[in-house]
Amino acid sequence: MFRVGYFQFRPLFGRVERNLNRVLAALSDVRADIVVLPELPFTGYYFATRDEVMALAEDPARSATVDSLARLCRQRDFYIVTGFAERRHEKAYNSSLLIGPQGLVHTYRKLHLFNTEKDYFDAGDTPLSVQELRGVKIGMMVCFDWAFPEVARTLALQGADILCHPANLVLGFCQQTMLTRCLENRLYAVTANRHGPDLRPHGELKFTGRSQVVAPGGKLLQRAPARRDLLHVVEIDPALARNKAITVRSDLIADRRPQFYGELAR
Amino acid sequence: MFRVGYFQFRPLFGRVERNLNRVLAALSDVRADIVVLPELPFTGYYFATRDEVMALAEDPARSATVDSLARLCRQRDFYIVTGFAERRHEKAYNSSLLIGPQGLVHTYRKLHLFNTEKDYFDAGDTPLSVQELRGVKIGMMVCFDWAFPEVARTLALQGADILCHPANLVLGFCQQTMLTRCLENRLYAVTANRHGPDLRPHGELKFTGRSQVVAPGGKLLQRAPARRDLLHVVEIDPALARNKAITVRSDLIADRRPQFYGELAR
Repeated sequence: MFRVGYFQFRPLFGRVERNLNRVLAALSDVRADIVVLPELPFTGYYFATRDEVMALAEDPARSATVDSLARLCRQRDFYIVTGFAERRHEKAYNSSLLIGPQGLVHTYRKLHLFNTEKDYFDAGDTPLSVQELRGVKIGMMVCFDWAFPEVARTLALQGADILCHPANLVLGFCQQTMLTRCLENRLYAVTANRHGPDLRPHGELKFTGRSQVVAPGGKLLQRAPARRDLLHVVEIDPALARNKAITVRSDLIADRRPQFYGELAR
Repeated sequence: MFRVGYFQFRPLFGRVERNLNRVLAALSDVRADIVVLPELPFTGYYFATRDEVMALAEDPARSATVDSLARLCRQRDFYIVTGFAERRHEKAYNSSLLIGPQGLVHTYRKLHLFNTEKDYFDAGDTPLSVQELRGVKIGMMVCFDWAFPEVARTLALQGADILCHPANLVLGFCQQTMLTRCLENRLYAVTANRHGPDLRPHGELKFTGRSQVVAPGGKLLQRAPARRDLLHVVEIDPALARNKAITVRSDLIADRRPQFYGELAR
């Protein structure tokens, strides 16, 4: 068995240290294999300009934030998938990091930027790939990637057992759509959303909470309320994600006809 | 504006003429641009053997059934998309036909056979393609194709405004998933399901009705009850399917990153 969960909370814009301490405190006695945090949980989400991103983003290879999270992973012997404002030379990415007892394991840079993110982040340039840990394969995606069926599918085709999905959701469509992703790909998904508003001089965004854990077949295992901090961990059987049969004779991966899907990669 | 709809009914297995007459009577004074019929509405669904299929399937190019439907299309000036047990020399396909006033317009052969269909149908070999009629582009899929996101997506990428989807559903997942298909691709979908059982010597299947029409964004426009014959036609604006923006700055087609989706066509 494998223990996965999320921590839903309300980051405050620009207050990296406060937000990090909030996470460290909440996870200080966690018992889990993986915990997923929201998108951009340390910087906050609603940037006004690229300069603002550049001022707050960090290089994960020399980040006090990453070091603190890795220390926690060593202490509690688990992994974290977290959103992260990533600065790499003159580029800035809306990224997701896999961090474990050994430190930073993998960086995924959001492929599908949402709305005004295009003004201040660079589009992701890391391939979709799965990471194996403790015999389980995890696939990383960030927020608006949910809307593109190609993302979850590409990860499923690489054998992902669990989609780890940091999010800052403002629309109401994602939660139901992730049930479909888990139905059509027969895998688990953990969506970690934030709640509360980002109130900035240039405007306000309200985030919708309702983080969730979904099982293969599209079964909702647990969902958070819309407006409350919540750390929730559930026990799952990753082996269920390796059986892609929707009926005895119908397999949602093996029955694909990729020779007819050429359009998708063009 | 454009009028699309479906006819949900209960075919009786093997009684092609009775089932055809049922359809002709139901549509005798229809006012529509396209009406979608269920999968295999003339032969019935639950075949025992390939010999049974061969005995009931027809070549659409010389089919009294197709001729009768085309005559109705001429009389009422509309199009039909219908499931069809297609015999082509020694091959048998679970197909969908587009029939209009001019006769047979297009044949699509189900790419993703469901469960025991594999025992008595050949897998489809026709590319996914869109057909233009009256300025509207329709994409054809059959039943279990719903479970494969590649199908609706491939048709959407070709510009489909409306998915025409004959079905004989036994599971309960399709209707909700088609809402996701219309959300992620921002197009219309008409799913025409049958209802009632196919009671055969080798077993019984129960079909679940609940045919539906869905609008771009995943909005359910209308859904039939589970167990009742129903002809339903709704007026839609196909132009809505050409706007793929989910927010002012986010477009579900233009924002794709196909260079990262190579896996899907392999």
